[in-house]
Amino acid sequence: MELKTKKINLSTGGPLVAVINEKDAKDLGLHPMDRVKLTKIKSKKEIVAVVDISNKGIDKGYVGLFNELFKELNVEEGNNIEVSYAPQPESVKYIRNKLNGIKLSEKEIYEIVMDIVSNKLSEVELTYFVAAVYKVGFDLKESASLTKAIVDSGTKLKFNSNIVFDKHCAGGVPNNRTTMIVVPIIAALGYIMPKTSSRAITSPAGTADTMEVVAPVALNENKIVEIVKSTNACMAWGGAVNLAAADDKMIKVRHPLSLDPEGMLLASILAKKKAVGATHVLIDLPYGTGAKFATKSIAKKLGKKFMALGKLLDMKLKVVYTNGSQPIGNGIGPSLEVEDVLSVLKGDGPNDLRNKAIYLATEMLKMINIKNAKQKVIEVLDSGKAYKKFQEIVVAQGGNKNIKVGKAKYSFEVKSASNGKISRIHNKPIAKLARLCGAPNDKLAGLYLRVKVGDHITKGDILFTLYAESSSKLNYAVNMLKKLKVIDVN
Amino acid sequence: MELKTKKINLSTGGPLVAVINEKDAKDLGLHPMDRVKLTKIKSKKEIVAVVDISNKGIDKGYVGLFNELFKELNVEEGNNIEVSYAPQPESVKYIRNKLNGIKLSEKEIYEIVMDIVSNKLSEVELTYFVAAVYKVGFDLKESASLTKAIVDSGTKLKFNSNIVFDKHCAGGVPNNRTTMIVVPIIAALGYIMPKTSSRAITSPAGTADTMEVVAPVALNENKIVEIVKSTNACMAWGGAVNLAAADDKMIKVRHPLSLDPEGMLLASILAKKKAVGATHVLIDLPYGTGAKFATKSIAKKLGKKFMALGKLLDMKLKVVYTNGSQPIGNGIGPSLEVEDVLSVLKGDGPNDLRNKAIYLATEMLKMINIKNAKQKVIEVLDSGKAYKKFQEIVVAQGGNKNIKVGKAKYSFEVKSASNGKISRIHNKPIAKLARLCGAPNDKLAGLYLRVKVGDHITKGDILFTLYAESSSKLNYAVNMLKKLKVIDVN
Repeated sequence: MELKTKKINLSTGGPLVAVINEKDAKDLGLHPMDRVKLTKIKSKKEIVAVVDISNKGIDKGYVGLFNELFKELNVEEGNNIEVSYAPQPESVKYIRNKLNGIKLSEKEIYEIVMDIVSNKLSEVELTYFVAAVYKVGFDLKESASLTKAIVDSGTKLKFNSNIVFDKHCAGGVPNNRTTMIVVPIIAALGYIMPKTSSRAITSPAGTADTMEVVAPVALNENKIVEIVKSTNACMAWGGAVNLAAADDKMIKVRHPLSLDPEGMLLASILAKKKAVGATHVLIDLPYGTGAKFATKSIAKKLGKKFMALGKLLDMKLKVVYTNGSQPIGNGIGPSLEVEDVLSVLKGDGPNDLRNKAIYLATEMLKMINIKNAKQKVIEVLDSGKAYKKFQEIVVAQGGNKNIKVGKAKYSFEVKSASNGKISRIHNKPIAKLARLCGAPNDKLAGLYLRVKVGDHITKGDILFTLYAESSSKLNYAVNMLKKLKVIDVN
Repeated sequence: MELKTKKINLSTGGPLVAVINEKDAKDLGLHPMDRVKLTKIKSKKEIVAVVDISNKGIDKGYVGLFNELFKELNVEEGNNIEVSYAPQPESVKYIRNKLNGIKLSEKEIYEIVMDIVSNKLSEVELTYFVAAVYKVGFDLKESASLTKAIVDSGTKLKFNSNIVFDKHCAGGVPNNRTTMIVVPIIAALGYIMPKTSSRAITSPAGTADTMEVVAPVALNENKIVEIVKSTNACMAWGGAVNLAAADDKMIKVRHPLSLDPEGMLLASILAKKKAVGATHVLIDLPYGTGAKFATKSIAKKLGKKFMALGKLLDMKLKVVYTNGSQPIGNGIGPSLEVEDVLSVLKGDGPNDLRNKAIYLATEMLKMINIKNAKQKVIEVLDSGKAYKKFQEIVVAQGGNKNIKVGKAKYSFEVKSASNGKISRIHNKPIAKLARLCGAPNDKLAGLYLRVKVGDHITKGDILFTLYAESSSKLNYAVNMLKKLKVIDVN
């Protein structure tokens, strides 16, 4: 059937969708979510799209094309195109197979991922894929196939070195901003570490949000390669780079139910490392009450899978298990975390953040058999070489050499109501308060801790300070204090 | 944040979706598939919608409203509305619970279904619900809750009678158009049978497609009640009536993977019976090679669940298991099936269709303890009373009393290449050929069988005739003959 194109000036966010009037749909024998083949009359160019049937907005005789499809088909408004029924891509069959408990081959997973990245699967089909991996699971071989396919779905970086470092932390612990210390240490020691990080989704700050306080982080592939060539490292926002393109689309449909299908999670993490050419990857899995993993043995189960998958992917991995039962560092929120990072890079505290960064950097050096690794790390930190390297990276990314962090306009001090010893600092309420204050969007907002577990305090001592850029946000956070158990004093 | 409304003249097909520019989304801390609360400045009317983030089509400062949302919010283009973050509905949590293997309460299922029907769930969330029921399953109690909730989600019909008949056939067998014979028999005997049927999705004809050859079937609730009051029965298309509104939305997302989660399938079928007020329901489960159930024992497993669910729903059910290994009747395709139906109603053959219709009608009468049931059924059929009733219903629905069926312009006879006995007629290739000829959209298209299993034939005898309304469709079907195993002669 020949239909006239009509541009729909909207994105679907991925899938190629064509909208057809319900009368035309009936004539073509189409049902919602079926597929159509669109053929340009002159050039014979063909594109298959998912069909959306509407009784409004698209008149009989027209086919509405969402942005992605309009662009892909490369037509003008009002062109005649031939529209006919098209079968589903084979990958939908593989998704159904997975949902039915059947193992997928490397080729099948590759096809699914390529169809995801080229927008051939509808959101509903993609959701079934996530649900299938969540309920049925992926074995290690399937996870390795998924990782490789995700890597192939995007851009790959290549550096002229046998050792390219990367690190990953499972998250859930406020501040814990070790990346911004470890990267300049490793780079100052002469090794390559092209780090990409995420922004916060539910936390008060991601590494990308924090780094953005001092320098632009939305760097493209060419820029990353250039910066790494000149400084050995970078600290970029992963979302601005087309690494692991298919992964972002899967994460989108995982979001509504906050699903972390293990086989997908492992692939997602390692694909991003593999895509930047990483050969040596340190995985930090914090455990403890309030951390992502309640106990060390739970963390170890995942750690073993990481190791096994790393082997299949020909990457050298090391997993460390760290105590994540209280925040690491004092500041929570982008600028407040930068303050801690700068302080450590200048050879000062907070001690827990300094010690953890030293530990992680040391473990990384040990992966390549460097002797006196810890000593070398401390030397590069205390000599100011790491700080100088940090400045270099900041400047290379387009930031200012004279790194300055402002202070929020509004603040509120929370004091202890009794004498005693700090027995616990609750991660989740801390994160929540910092978000209520405006972090991560308000860069100066957040919370600054004055105590750590084990500290002895006197009634009236400041436990923490809330910072906000607007009085209403500060008030809202202050009001929430009554409802939250933030710090236990015994 | 205050944004100006912009009408998007397109339907989502259900979910309430608001489109926001990515800059505004960042300021609001929104991620794709999050929700926003939209508040009209003056009236304070609030609606929660799923957010779609776009960098095209919607400028900063605007919020795009798809048809459903625009209508629900009852605004004009360019109105100012307050837009803020909103949490997910509770029902999303229940869906996640189900996916994690947790049983759902009646109240929770009710809430999910009501959120589906009022378009509060996104397609992705709805897909997770289907996937969860598919993988985790529903127990009978959950299926009963789902059935009741689906019934409550739509319009309910009520007839002033203690006995309201209905029937259901699991499908998969070509022709098998017993409904159009059973309904007039039961109605002629003085019982109420307000039948709604579906159109074909993958078969060459549904009862609604077939009935449509002789009368309109897109009847609304009032019309159905009126027709049943005057004639005791109707044969309407279920899709035109707002019975089981939530079910249609679930079926839409089940379609891409052709998923039939059992707990959902049972609820879907019985909800439509309950919604028309049915008290006595006959379920026909055809079994055999090429039928929906390969063996009788597989069919019986489902039959038992139907019976148990019927009990929980306070409906009287009877399940019959019939041989479905070859087509019932001769014509396949809407008009060709009508020919068979009319022939039987006039006291003639095809014998298999006549006998099955008599059997089903008899079994229904036995459910209410009618004596000499079979004799009564045959009498009403052979006396022409059933045909007269059929005419009455056709006229009441808006059809012509003088029922006439045309013949397709193009035909092709398929002859036997050898002498022998018909050992098998393959259901699926038969259905495929009829669809290739144009059924169900081309009403006159399809296939007419001249033989049945067990018949002795001579080389050159006609096995079946293909009918089409266009020569190209006929040629396409004829070409496919070589590739298909349609009838086995031994």
